[in-house]
Parts: sequence; structure tokens; C-alpha cells
Amino acid sequence: MIRAGIVGGTGYTGVELLRILVLHPEVEVAVVTSRSDAGIRVDEVYPNLRGAIDILFTVPDPKVLSRCDVVFFATPNGTAMLMAEELLQKDVKVIDLSADFRLKDAEEWAEWYGMEHACPHLIEEAVYGLPEVNRERIKQTRLCACPGCYPTAVQLGFLPLIETGLIEPAYLIADVKSGVSGAGRKAQVSSLMSEAGESVKAYAAGGHRHLPEISQGLEAASGNPVSLTFVPHLMPMTRGIHATLYARLQEEVDELQSLYQQRYAEEFFVDVLPAGAHPSTANVRGGNHCQIAIHRSRQDSRLVVILSVIDNLVKGASGQAVQNMNLMFGLDERLGLNIVGLYP
Amino acid sequence: MIRAGIVGGTGYTGVELLRILVLHPEVEVAVVTSRSDAGIRVDEVYPNLRGAIDILFTVPDPKVLSRCDVVFFATPNGTAMLMAEELLQKDVKVIDLSADFRLKDAEEWAEWYGMEHACPHLIEEAVYGLPEVNRERIKQTRLCACPGCYPTAVQLGFLPLIETGLIEPAYLIADVKSGVSGAGRKAQVSSLMSEAGESVKAYAAGGHRHLPEISQGLEAASGNPVSLTFVPHLMPMTRGIHATLYARLQEEVDELQSLYQQRYAEEFFVDVLPAGAHPSTANVRGGNHCQIAIHRSRQDSRLVVILSVIDNLVKGASGQAVQNMNLMFGLDERLGLNIVGLYP
Amino acid sequence: MIRAGIVGGTGYTGVELLRILVLHPEVEVAVVTSRSDAGIRVDEVYPNLRGAIDILFTVPDPKVLSRCDVVFFATPNGTAMLMAEELLQKDVKVIDLSADFRLKDAEEWAEWYGMEHACPHLIEEAVYGLPEVNRERIKQTRLCACPGCYPTAVQLGFLPLIETGLIEPAYLIADVKSGVSGAGRKAQVSSLMSEAGESVKAYAAGGHRHLPEISQGLEAASGNPVSLTFVPHLMPMTRGIHATLYARLQEEVDELQSLYQQRYAEEFFVDVLPAGAHPSTANVRGGNHCQIAIHRSRQDSRLVVILSVIDNLVKGASGQAVQNMNLMFGLDERLGLNIVGLYP
Amino acid sequence: MIRAGIVGGTGYTGVELLRILVLHPEVEVAVVTSRSDAGIRVDEVYPNLRGAIDILFTVPDPKVLSRCDVVFFATPNGTAMLMAEELLQKDVKVIDLSADFRLKDAEEWAEWYGMEHACPHLIEEAVYGLPEVNRERIKQTRLCACPGCYPTAVQLGFLPLIETGLIEPAYLIADVKSGVSGAGRKAQVSSLMSEAGESVKAYAAGGHRHLPEISQGLEAASGNPVSLTFVPHLMPMTRGIHATLYARLQEEVDELQSLYQQRYAEEFFVDVLPAGAHPSTANVRGGNHCQIAIHRSRQDSRLVVILSVIDNLVKGASGQAVQNMNLMFGLDERLGLNIVGLYP
Repeated sequence: MIRAGIVGGTGYTGVELLRILVLHPEVEVAVVTSRSDAGIRVDEVYPNLRGAIDILFTVPDPKVLSRCDVVFFATPNGTAMLMAEELLQKDVKVIDLSADFRLKDAEEWAEWYGMEHACPHLIEEAVYGLPEVNRERIKQTRLCACPGCYPTAVQLGFLPLIETGLIEPAYLIADVKSGVSGAGRKAQVSSLMSEAGESVKAYAAGGHRHLPEISQGLEAASGNPVSLTFVPHLMPMTRGIHATLYARLQEEVDELQSLYQQRYAEEFFVDVLPAGAHPSTANVRGGNHCQIAIHRSRQDSRLVVILSVIDNLVKGASGQAVQNMNLMFGLDERLGLNIVGLYP
Repeated sequence: MIRAGIVGGTGYTGVELLRILVLHPEVEVAVVTSRSDAGIRVDEVYPNLRGAIDILFTVPDPKVLSRCDVVFFATPNGTAMLMAEELLQKDVKVIDLSADFRLKDAEEWAEWYGMEHACPHLIEEAVYGLPEVNRERIKQTRLCACPGCYPTAVQLGFLPLIETGLIEPAYLIADVKSGVSGAGRKAQVSSLMSEAGESVKAYAAGGHRHLPEISQGLEAASGNPVSLTFVPHLMPMTRGIHATLYARLQEEVDELQSLYQQRYAEEFFVDVLPAGAHPSTANVRGGNHCQIAIHRSRQDSRLVVILSVIDNLVKGASGQAVQNMNLMFGLDERLGLNIVGLYP
Repeated sequence: MIRAGIVGGTGYTGVELLRILVLHPEVEVAVVTSRSDAGIRVDEVYPNLRGAIDILFTVPDPKVLSRCDVVFFATPNGTAMLMAEELLQKDVKVIDLSADFRLKDAEEWAEWYGMEHACPHLIEEAVYGLPEVNRERIKQTRLCACPGCYPTAVQLGFLPLIETGLIEPAYLIADVKSGVSGAGRKAQVSSLMSEAGESVKAYAAGGHRHLPEISQGLEAASGNPVSLTFVPHLMPMTRGIHATLYARLQEEVDELQSLYQQRYAEEFFVDVLPAGAHPSTANVRGGNHCQIAIHRSRQDSRLVVILSVIDNLVKGASGQAVQNMNLMFGLDERLGLNIVGLYP
Repeated sequence: MIRAGIVGGTGYTGVELLRILVLHPEVEVAVVTSRSDAGIRVDEVYPNLRGAIDILFTVPDPKVLSRCDVVFFATPNGTAMLMAEELLQKDVKVIDLSADFRLKDAEEWAEWYGMEHACPHLIEEAVYGLPEVNRERIKQTRLCACPGCYPTAVQLGFLPLIETGLIEPAYLIADVKSGVSGAGRKAQVSSLMSEAGESVKAYAAGGHRHLPEISQGLEAASGNPVSLTFVPHLMPMTRGIHATLYARLQEEVDELQSLYQQRYAEEFFVDVLPAGAHPSTANVRGGNHCQIAIHRSRQDSRLVVILSVIDNLVKGASGQAVQNMNLMFGLDERLGLNIVGLYP
């Protein structure tokens, strides 16, 4: 059994990790930390876990954590970079769900995240945990930087077109809609039901932290600079991301459906829908799948519209983290993630 | 492997049965019928099942169904009573999620359901599928009548008080709140999001079909007539039932918390919360648990308030049906139902 | 024109007062205070008011407020009692939407609200602002204590039965469902959309602050002690209260429908629905009406079920406050409140 | 007083017309027709109108309707074109909220709406009721074709850029999000709360009926052909449209904020927000305003992002229809439409 620790267990990615890990056949959850809830039973804060976990939140203690085989960071940005090195030195694998090790450029990171990077020398070693791109490197790494929720949906949607060079990399648009759980469990006015319910709004239209992360991934896939316009929107729902992606073909191409099907033929968690389909975020609620559909603009045959949906807390966070853990420990990638979406 | 058939697979209890059964280690879903969707892939109607099931809806055919070991009826009322006998004769076990075999009095059934009962001679044989009451009889039966969603939440909440005779059976009140999935997937104006969203209303305050079912169960537990006022309410959400139950103690009683804990000590799917707790329906979203909390009125110490929550589609329908199947086939009652609720 | 001031304008009752007052033909909103948002345009915090109001939030300043004809307190509990006296001395009428002057017993107030009452000598003078009970006294007062949202819905529902002595005052039950705006605009985890959305829960089942307020009103109407069990519930919606009230008739009574119709025949804002109706909170969304329907229990003919709905922010707060202002200034009670509910 | 008739009063645009017209100082609602609900009180179907309207639904009768000064068609497509001519001949002004007279090309209309146009000779006469474009012509017309909800939000957002020729007309993208009330009050599975709640999906990505209507308007404003990619999305909410518009500047332009402010300086119902703002659909809930904000892409300075929000049932339908009525009868355009949005 893999002894797993979770740092920052009171947030939504923390409880989602627990939902998955307590049923994972090869994992024992040994420690769950929370500064704010230390001393309280985990299932008192999250009563959905009653009967499934029997431990208390504890304060994060490197000694205790170092007895784990793997530690997940489900923390705000800026925490994992302070603790990762010590854990790695004690042969603990680290899977970071925050943004600390996603960007390869420490200065760019500092600019977007508003603090100096505390551990820049580990950035190079960290492997970006998008298995559909980096599977072999993830298997070898001891430090995995899990992608953000928006970047997962957007990259999986664009990749087949970017990798093949079929589209103009200078004209990419990602109009993305997210449920409010993406903002976490922090008490803030904008996430109140009275504010976010029954309303839709864009935010950060001038630039969002996930923009450089997506660009970095697309440029790596393309080999060329890309220019991406990324507008996130807040939806009146809890879970789910729907990315609507617009790109222009370099020249007329007949068949995109088969391109996508081939690209993802071996990917268990990426599901290319039949031609003409419109995925709903409800299709993947609670599950680790990404569903993708390909459309063309009616008035402009070179303009492609890609629809890509995930559950932001699963494939966009905790599910993907467990998928990465499975790879890092040589397990079947799907272990513990065989979940059918909750519909309705 | 148990070969299972589902009649009426396009409704919400049908897809919920599928969500559970496709992951059940001892079940193979052999046939799913739907008159309206016959010939269509199941996962085309329910894309959350993509990758999990590979068959088409078919028209219900007794010959095909009779090759199953068990057939679930996830149909509107009035269908199971037409087909059950033929299946039983061919040694197929029948688990009915509709109301056809719940009431022991065929005339009362006819009055509430607006049609003559087509198969009254099987009513006596049918076992009411509330395992927390009828476990041993369920194990022996070949015809199980699964309780309604409201009756499950209300009976589990009242039982410890009723069975012990602690409360006055003539003054029971059940104020129950349900998500709209309880009304099924039928296209009707009252279930539209524009109607049911952002609004709360009571309905059938003068009498609801689940009233005689609940009364029958409570009277069996009490051994006396009961008088129950049952008011169902429609909530602006999809899943979940919250029953708020009011009863008067015959005389002062100090300890109710331990009464409940003892009554349900061996029940895996009934979870008595710590004193003072208020269960949220979100605690059990997608799971088969019932969570119960016990309170006292501040101004009237003999008035007890019981809070009982379930997921109407799981413990209130398809999960309980699978729990009954497990019992009927001698399996561990929990098989396939080890689901942690989806939170948030 | 009446010069109106609003203290505490950034909360939901504050913005709701503004929505109503900016269109009121006899009112000019002269000052809106907010400690947290002082210096910011009102319509920057509440963009729904763009074009309707052109002033900034200011810090509450008694000098400025004393130039108003009326000051509304849309503040947390404990603020109005510190400022009311000074304003009254300067001939400013005070309408308090908080709980400071609702309870006639200062000790009981202190017990429930967790602080000493700072201005107990004004309690006696304050008139409880439920026009359907206290209209003539409201017309004469200079200090109006507006009822809470739950107390408004519950009292209007029980009053005809209580005033006539038809029901047993010792067995009253109020099962009340509220939208989350009732918890205000405070950033707290329990009001997050991810927590409150798609879920129902009871809270404060053992005793809620509105309990003594309701009891006080019912006892005044009854002339006898009452025993009320009051259980509030949080609904996954923003606006609306649905009170489901249970009471037992002292003896059989044939006609309750006409009793209610007569009691409220002259009340513009209380609407008794036709027999058999089930009011939806959506019926009164944004409007100042209370809709009431009367039902009987099917199994217990002496048990009466009353359904009473309001918009918690209008008849339950700011609309009723304006109704009281109209009375206090000798205006038509309905002025500025002729609003048709927003449906859907 | 203007005698107004409404044909098709049981849909959501019908009840929204009633909400506005019953409070309009110059209008008397004389007749409201509904084939399905004829003989039933209007306020029985829509209890939010209790106290505001006292008539019954009637079957549509040209004789009765011809005694009106104006008739609104809040009907499905294909009805107004059958009745408009007879009413016009009797000097009744006609305001059509359906699509019957929006497209100038009868063949294109037939292609998109799946039926022959029954009254093509009136198409030329009909004036497209977008006051911000056609105000003077609306004042003169007797037949007004009100724009669709999507076309209103999209055209108002693009117009300043299109009219000035600043953007490339061949690369327009409109990613638009709508609440489910846009699908009307028809009982259909896709509009059920269990389907549309807590989920986001695109639909008609390959071509939606509002596409030719938008193109027609933009081409008229541009004087050139345009190529528009329009992807509508269904949001888990009832009211509101959020259009996110993407366009490329022909060349670098410094100032767009002032361009929009000048274009709409005299438009009461179009509100250009301060630079950097992100309008929420909740800002305009229940009101007739369109709020617009202008942004630039961070990685591509020539790419402009326009955010445009309306209430689909008000500025996107019934409010705009009343605005047009005001113009057609020489009244102040704002009469009856001075509504502050309901927030929260």
C-alpha cells in the first residue's frame, strides 16, 4: 500500500483527493493536514466522508509527512515550493496541485503570482503532469506539477490541431466557462450563492494566471510562438469547465474528426464524441474524463470550433493528480478513477 | 455473474441503476429496454456512461428478459404489475422500483394510483424492500417492492421512535423537501428550470401517493394506527431529500441520541450523526447513505425534531434496489454501493 | 420630498432599499453610508443601480444623517441602538431593519444577541413594524422596528388562527425555508455557492434568534402563552421564504378559507390564494406581497397546514420598511411598492 | 390610453409583457389570448400578476383584437405572419416578438425556419425594432419586428466597431451564453432543471437561426459582407444573456472606450461600463438595459474582446417590444421601463 499524505486537506481539491483515495485499492491515506482545522475529525468538516476515513486533521509536520510515500499539495500557491525539497530529500514523491512548479520561467511565475519563487532550482526537474503529453516523463519523476483546471481543458482541446501545425498559432481564442468551485472554499463575496447564482460574468479578461501556463504548453506542442486570447467566465454552478475554442486552419482540411480520434485513441480519459455532438459538463460530473467535440463555423469553413469539457475538480485537479500518482508508482493509470459521472 | 435486465432505462432511476451496476463486480447488464429510445445506444442518451456500457436500448421483450437472473423495473407505475408474473414463472427475480407492489391493500392502491391493480395476487408475496426493516424477508423473496424516495427518508427517521412506542402515533408530521429529479425525466412545465429554479413550493399538501405507503410502514412498526401529516415540497435543486420530522413524546425521555445509535448500530447505510448536527443533502449526494440527526424543540421539550437526508435517486431508489439485489442473491449488502458522496 | 438616509448600504437589505427608494415618487436618497466602501460610488458596488443613483458611500456621520427626514438602518444587529437616540432628538424618524428594537424584553434580547442592549429606554417606544397588526401605532411612531424575515412570514400565516383562538397555542410548528440572501452579503463559507447550492439543510433546529420575536408577536395576538417549534432551513436559491405552518384546531371548524379572506380583506400586501393553491416563492420574487394558502391534513382533520410565502428582502425586510415609512409620513402605504414579481 | 392586445400570452415573453404593461401609465391591457389556457384567469397561470390584472385568457379572435390600438405577438414563429395583415388593415399596429418579419429575405427565412413565409409582401414594410439603429423608422412604422435575444446582445456589442469599419468583418466571433428561459415555457426534456441545472453546454454550434439575423444587421451596419461564427451556450440559470465578442482591428487603435461611450451617449438603455469592468448578467436582471465593457487581448493587442449583457426577456424581448411601442405611439421611449435590476 502507498502511504499518502495530503497537505491542505480542507479545500475542495483536498476533499476531492480524499473522495478518490479512500476508495483507491493501493493507497492508504496516512495524514491530512490543515492549519485551520487541526485537531478536528476530517469527516466532521466533510460529512460526505463519514465511514470512509477515521483520522483528524493535523498541522503539517515534515517529520510526519516524510514517512509517507507520496505527498499531495492541495494548498494555495506558495506553499509547496517551501516544503517540496525536504520531502524529496527523504525520498517522498511530491505531487503539487497548486501552481508552484507549473511554469518553467521563475521570473514569469513571480510576475503572475506576485511573489518570488522560493525554490527555483526544482522547477527544471518538475514534470508537468498532463499524462496525455508527458506520460513517460511522469513515470520517471519524483516531482509532478499538476496542470490547472483551465489549462487541462484548453490544452486537450487544442493539442491535435497544434501538434499537427494545422492551425495558425497566432489566432487562438479560448472562451472558457467554469463553475464556482474553481475559486475554492475561501470565504469571499464573489463566490457567495447570492452573487454567483443565477448570473454569468467574465473575469480577468485582460489576463489570467492560467494564460502563461496554457501558452507554455501550446508552444511546446507547436514548436512555435502562439498568441492566445483567453477569457474565463464564472458560471452559476458548482462543478465543471466548458472550454469553447476557436482556431483558424492554415488551409482547408476535410477531416478533423478522425484526427482527434487518432490522437486520443489510446487515451482512456480523453473521449472524442461523435461528429456533431455537444458535450455537457454534466456528462463528466465527478468523473476523470475529458469529452471533446469538433465543429466548423457555418460562415467560415476554415474556422474550427472545439468544445472540451471536464470536471474541474477531477480531471482539472484531484483526479489528474491521482492519475499522475498511478503513473509515478507504476500502477495502472486508471486505478481508483473508474468513476461514472453523476447524471443528473 | 448475475445477468441483470432493466426495464425502462431512460428515466433517472434507470440511468442511476446503470451508473451503479456497470461498476458492480458481480453484475453484467444484459439488457436495457426503452420503448421510446429502442435502437439507440444507451450512452448516446446518457453520455456519462460512455466507455462503461456498449449496448443499445431495446423494446421490452419477455423472452429476452427471461434470460436474465434479475429484472429491475424503473418504469412508471402500472408496468411492472403487467410483466412481473411471467418473469417470476421463468425463475427471474423481480425488483420493482415503481409503486406497483408497495401497498398491501389493492383497493387503496387503485384509489391512489387511478387504475385497477392488474396483478393483486402477487401483492402478498412481494416484500417491501426496506432492508433496515425487512432484511431477512428480502433475502428470501423473488419479488421485491422498493420503497419510494419520500417513504425511505421518513420511515428511517421515525422508526426508532415508533418501534419503541415513545411517541404519540396520532401526531406525526413530515415536512419533506425534494429535488426535482424526483419528478423524473418527463417533459412537464412544472419541472422546467425556469419554473422550478430559484423557487420553493409545497405540493399535494392535501394528500400525496406516498402517504399511504408511509402510514402502512409506520403502522406495521407501531402495531397501532398512526396519523401522519405529510407535506412534500419541491426544491430548486436536482438531487436530494431532506425530511424534517416532528413527533411528540408520550412522556419525557432523556436520551434519544443513544436510542438511534443503537437502532442503527449494525446498519451500514444509516448513519446517526453526532448530537446537534444538521445533515445537508449534499453529504449524501450520489451515495446510498441516510444521515439522521435528532433535535428537541426549545419551547416544548416533548417535541422531537428528526432530520433525515438521502439522495432520492440512490437510497431513495436505485441504490436501495441494488442493496436489495445484493440481499436477494446472497451477496454482501454493500457490494457496488461503496460510494463516497460528491462534495461539493 | 422626504430626505432619506441609509446606514449600512452595502448589504442586501441596503441595496434593496435603494432599488425601491430611487423609484419612490416622494423620496430623495440623500446619503448612503458604508464604513467599508466609503468613497466608492454606490453604483460601482451595485451596478444594477447605474443611472439610478449618482452618489458615493460615506462614513456614517450623525451630523449629515441628522439632516435627513428619515434614516433606515440596514446594519448588523447592535448598530442602530447606538445611533437612534441622537437622530430622534434631532427629529429624524428612524426605521430599523435590524433586530435592535424588536424584542420588548432587553434581557431576552441580550441573551439571544450576545450583547447588552445599549439603549433599553427606547425599546418601549419602538413600534414593531408589522402594518397588518400595528398600522395605527406605526403611523404615530418615530421609531419603527421592522420585523425579521422569518417572523413576517410566520406571523402573517398564523395570525387569523391565533387571534380567533381557534388553535391550540401550545402546539405550533413552523418549518421555514429561506434563500441564502437571508444570511446577508457577509463572506462566510456556509453561504458559498459550492456549499449552499444544490443542497438543503436545516440549521439552528435547537433555537434561532427569530424564535422569541415570533413568540412575542403570537402571544400578543393570542393573549396566551404559545409554544412554538421553529426550524429554519437553508434553500439552494437566493431569494424567498416559504413558511409551512402546522397547528391543531381546538375543535372541528368547517371554514378557514373565509376566515383568512376576511382577516386580510383590506390588506393590500397579504393575498389569500384560492382554496387548494400552493404558492411558490417565485410568485412574489421582488414584490412586497405575502401569499397565503390554507390546507387540511388528510389523516387528521383538525390539523391545519398554512403555506405562507414572501420575498425575504422585500416584505421580509426593505419593502416592509418602505411600507412603514409611507405610514409614518402619512403617505399611501403602497407608494413605491407597486411591483409585480419577476416571473420566471 | 393605448388599448393593447397580446397574442400568445402564456409564454415567458407574454408574462413579461404583462409585468411591464400592467404598470405602464399609458397602456390598458385589453385582451390576452392563449389557445391552451382560454377561459382561465391570467393570474391563475401567473400568480405573480395577482392584483395587477383581472381578465381571462381568450382564444385569439381577429374581431376582438382589431379593437386594440396595438397587438403584440408573443407567439411561436409562424403565427404573426398569418394574422398581421388583417390587423394592419384595421389600423392596428403590430409588434411581433417572434422571428416572422426579422429577415428581409423570405427564402432565407424559409430555409432557417422550415416553412414557407405566409406573408412575404409585408416583410419589406416591417421595421427591425432595434431602436439604437432604427429609431426614426420605428417611429413611422405600423409593423415592428422585434429582434431576437441573441441578436440584440451581439449587435449592440459589435455596432460601434462595425459602423466605423475598425475591425475585419471576416473574423467575427460571438460566444454567447443564455439562460434557459430563452427556450421558452415549452415542456421539453432539455429545459428540465435536472438536465439544464448545474451544467453548461453549447448547442447549434454548426448554425443557429439567429445567425442570419445577426449577419443581416451587421452587414447593414458595415456596408460589407461579414463572416460571423456564432456559438450559443445554455447556462444553468433562468434569465440573462452574456455575449463575449471577439474581433480583430484592421490596424492598431488606441482608444475604444470613448468610441463606445460616444456611440451610445444618447442611448438610455445602452450603458458603457468604465474601462476594465466585467458586467454580470445579474446587473440587468429584470431591467431593459444592455451593459457593455471593452477589453483587449493580452497577447494580441489587435484583438478586441467585447462583453455585452442583457436580460433576454426584457431588452432581448418584451422590454424592447415596449420600447418600440413607445416610439410607435410618440411616447417617451422609457415609459414603463424605468426598472432597476433585481440584485441579488
